[in-house]
Amino acid sequence: MARPSLREKLASSAVDTLHAHGFTGCSIQDITEAAGVPKGSFFNHFENKEDLAIDALHRYLEGTRSDMLFEEGVPPLERLKNHFSFLSERVLVHGFERGCLLGIFAAEMAQEYPKMREELRLVFETWCGAVEQAVSEAQARGEVDPRHDAGQTARFLVNAWEGAALQLKITRNRRPIDDFMNTAFKALLK
Amino acid sequence: MARPSLREKLASSAVDTLHAHGFTGCSIQDITEAAGVPKGSFFNHFENKEDLAIDALHRYLEGTRSDMLFEEGVPPLERLKNHFSFLSERVLVHGFERGCLLGIFAAEMAQEYPKMREELRLVFETWCGAVEQAVSEAQARGEVDPRHDAGQTARFLVNAWEGAALQLKITRNRRPIDDFMNTAFKALLK
Repeated sequence: MARPSLREKLASSAVDTLHAHGFTGCSIQDITEAAGVPKGSFFNHFENKEDLAIDALHRYLEGTRSDMLFEEGVPPLERLKNHFSFLSERVLVHGFERGCLLGIFAAEMAQEYPKMREELRLVFETWCGAVEQAVSEAQARGEVDPRHDAGQTARFLVNAWEGAALQLKITRNRRPIDDFMNTAFKALLK
Repeated sequence: MARPSLREKLASSAVDTLHAHGFTGCSIQDITEAAGVPKGSFFNHFENKEDLAIDALHRYLEGTRSDMLFEEGVPPLERLKNHFSFLSERVLVHGFERGCLLGIFAAEMAQEYPKMREELRLVFETWCGAVEQAVSEAQARGEVDPRHDAGQTARFLVNAWEGAALQLKITRNRRPIDDFMNTAFKALLK
């Protein structure tokens, strides 16, 4: 196997460093040190720290298995449940104190970094669109009350999930996630 | 009227500076400059920046009108709606890019500042408890499905509201708040 390029080494390690410490909580030096690459090499590969964070955002998203929302042969409500369960367990694996990288970047960067804000906007738009489609399908099959606005319900769910992931940082137990799963799937989507 | 003390001037101005820029987004110097007090006076009044942020958190909370959740003569479901409507309009007044100070501090500080984390934990516990009481009362009156767990529903709502407030920073329009109000009160609490 070929050795990973310096860029690859830096970028893949940065996902973890940024997730653990947040954008403002780590410096370029912290990131290059954690990656084991020379600090001076940073600007050969990335224009600035925001560019690296955008790259990290997309690497983080690769692990979100959004394909589960479209899995053939699985009823739409079950796909929604599988999707949010998967995200929930994934965020818990990293430890309660981290939360979701999307939420962290939203809180820390949306205001001062327009390029990141636009990336986040597109990411949430795509995510909400996929959830909306599954909600609509569940409504068509009579699994979910058809009187609810599917788009609004989808966006509400995604934001509620991000709110729960943020709350993990405070409670340091899985309760916010359990509250989300139970309320979303026993009280709202039915 | 007596002139506000230097401490009061510093602390009341800090709420706005911290809300506008976040904890890591402004320095002690930014805060003292915005307050129009000498930088050197900071440590006469606060032990450190975290202490000032905790003071700012409590000042911010004074404006949340949590008494609306207990208003006599108003049915519980209406009190819940009034409460979240009030919070929503309040967060919108500050502009889409700010979000909620609780959520900002949770994202930025919960991990590295245990004292702030404990304050936030207590604040959310109190808030969720008050919402839970109103949900229970609404259930007892037959306004809300009594099969839902009131505590879980309350915590879900509070976290969902924080998720919506965080999303404002990205969408820069009121849609996340409208999605919250509509879904919470038309689809969930019924």
